[in-house]
Amino acid sequence: MKLREFQSYLRKNKIGAAIFAHPDPCITYFTQMVPSHAVLCITPKKATFLITKLDKMKKVSGIDIQYFSKDWKKKLSKKTEKLGVNKQSLTVSSLENMKKMFPKAKVVDVSSTLTKLRETKTKKEIQCISKACKITSNAFDALIQELPKKKLHTEQDVAFFLERHFQKEGGEVAFPTIAAVGKNAAIPHHVTSNALLQRGFLLIDFGAKYKNYCADMTRMIFLGKPSEEEKGWYNLLYTSQEDARLAVADGVKYSELDKTARKSLGKYEKKFIHSLGHGIGLEVHENPVFSNGKVKHNVPFTIEPGIYFPGKFGLRIEDTVIFDGKLKVLTVASKKLPEIAGW
Amino acid sequence: MKLREFQSYLRKNKIGAAIFAHPDPCITYFTQMVPSHAVLCITPKKATFLITKLDKMKKVSGIDIQYFSKDWKKKLSKKTEKLGVNKQSLTVSSLENMKKMFPKAKVVDVSSTLTKLRETKTKKEIQCISKACKITSNAFDALIQELPKKKLHTEQDVAFFLERHFQKEGGEVAFPTIAAVGKNAAIPHHVTSNALLQRGFLLIDFGAKYKNYCADMTRMIFLGKPSEEEKGWYNLLYTSQEDARLAVADGVKYSELDKTARKSLGKYEKKFIHSLGHGIGLEVHENPVFSNGKVKHNVPFTIEPGIYFPGKFGLRIEDTVIFDGKLKVLTVASKKLPEIAGW
Repeated sequence: MKLREFQSYLRKNKIGAAIFAHPDPCITYFTQMVPSHAVLCITPKKATFLITKLDKMKKVSGIDIQYFSKDWKKKLSKKTEKLGVNKQSLTVSSLENMKKMFPKAKVVDVSSTLTKLRETKTKKEIQCISKACKITSNAFDALIQELPKKKLHTEQDVAFFLERHFQKEGGEVAFPTIAAVGKNAAIPHHVTSNALLQRGFLLIDFGAKYKNYCADMTRMIFLGKPSEEEKGWYNLLYTSQEDARLAVADGVKYSELDKTARKSLGKYEKKFIHSLGHGIGLEVHENPVFSNGKVKHNVPFTIEPGIYFPGKFGLRIEDTVIFDGKLKVLTVASKKLPEIAGW
Repeated sequence: MKLREFQSYLRKNKIGAAIFAHPDPCITYFTQMVPSHAVLCITPKKATFLITKLDKMKKVSGIDIQYFSKDWKKKLSKKTEKLGVNKQSLTVSSLENMKKMFPKAKVVDVSSTLTKLRETKTKKEIQCISKACKITSNAFDALIQELPKKKLHTEQDVAFFLERHFQKEGGEVAFPTIAAVGKNAAIPHHVTSNALLQRGFLLIDFGAKYKNYCADMTRMIFLGKPSEEEKGWYNLLYTSQEDARLAVADGVKYSELDKTARKSLGKYEKKFIHSLGHGIGLEVHENPVFSNGKVKHNVPFTIEPGIYFPGKFGLRIEDTVIFDGKLKVLTVASKKLPEIAGW
């Protein structure tokens, strides 16, 4: 993506070369590949991508892909006074190795430029994210059809069912699925276990990946028939998420959306122990971060308020959304609380 | 693991504190936790582990676990003249942040000490790796029982079957399973696809994780009845792997084992396009690397020769092994080539 824009930035800033060492999501950003081991060197005029024979050689527009050879360092060690690196991903020891390869170069950080480039998505990126969200939503719908059959018995069964569905539709798993019953759902990042499904709320936080781009969605399911109090918790949170969604407009601060969701929770605001959301794209969590920044066109993000009662239960509702003049919810699965009979 | 040994090293070297920032496998090494976000600070006398409320609070011997608070930096910003960091994992931007927290400290790299500590496994670590290998082997045995039923149709079906089996035995997935049919197996790190199973070799490279410790195993399966030529390829590779195994002895260089396996392949040596193996533990690939180092007691590693014919087929046989006076193969699944009727 946006290779030319990045090369133009290098030219303007007289950066002779930018080097990326695996692991770095920017490698996938520019090459659309997820290599086992690789070095990517971008100059104002050229992009050279070195991979090992462990990986499949592909053709990528604008990128010269080669296998590592014994003299690979010579291929890169051109004279440059300024060397660009991504300090957000590069390890200290990799930087030290690079300095040996370019002993005279001044090292400059290109991470903020990369962040800006990556934050606003191209049409193609939005298509991939939308498709990932569609696959995720379809998996949820399939789960709602499957649960009454009583073939899924544990949190892990639920997670496997969803992840298996991703593959049926050509997707991959963006991050380990969180399936949480009872008090497990009070831990926002609960590690899906072999806990048995039981009457009550089932939280699922999951997402497919399509052509390296991620979806992120959380839905609540009620196993059995919820009491009025239980419906009340769900409706409180639903309204909080809806209020945040309705507050989205061009230039509104993410922190304002966060405040809106919290205000909507009233006295239960303190039970909402994390941020309202995060940017999403190649990485499940990427820029923008909600502590700064404003809603912009074509920058996808999540809206995910939650309320947690340690040792008891927890609820979260999450959508991946994008603003393009108006808000589009990409994770289209229904947010009406499904009630599954038989528990 | 080995927290006291590390603290003793800090004391001897007058390193006031070592700080680890997420993501760093050393955090899991010392705390046995896999946090969403965390900072671990180890001093000669104390270990403080800061996590967010997203993760479950656990008790870990010798570690003071706390949630991040607003003044968390103050908790760590003690006077120290020497600050230890893991340059192998720490990003450049995290290092810059640390330098702001400890403006007067001299930063020293503790990565080689950590590598040495982690390389030789404790009894508990060996138990976990052995269990991971046992789960992996059991999953293979179950697959051999399942394949004749013809319910698995694609590479992804095979991968899911194996990974599902890990969970049944209390394991997790150590790395994405490689299942490769036909020419796909000629790419050592083939990305498992929806390619249909077909007559011929099926390569599976997979591993369970148990309590954060990994197994790594590759087996070949023949769908249908192999020709004499096909049996010949398998036997050639089997002998190469066996020769390397038989060459393992105290103090033998890994590079010698590598040479042995290559020699055994005769004129097909050039088809073996990667290293013979790697160390394994918390990470699937960790120290030792085979380009240097010698066989030592209680250092698990893999032995995995392969031969690859681009566009045609590929074979690899891999075991996770450990030496404790004699060689123990931890991935106990049979290496007799299974022939699955019906293809």
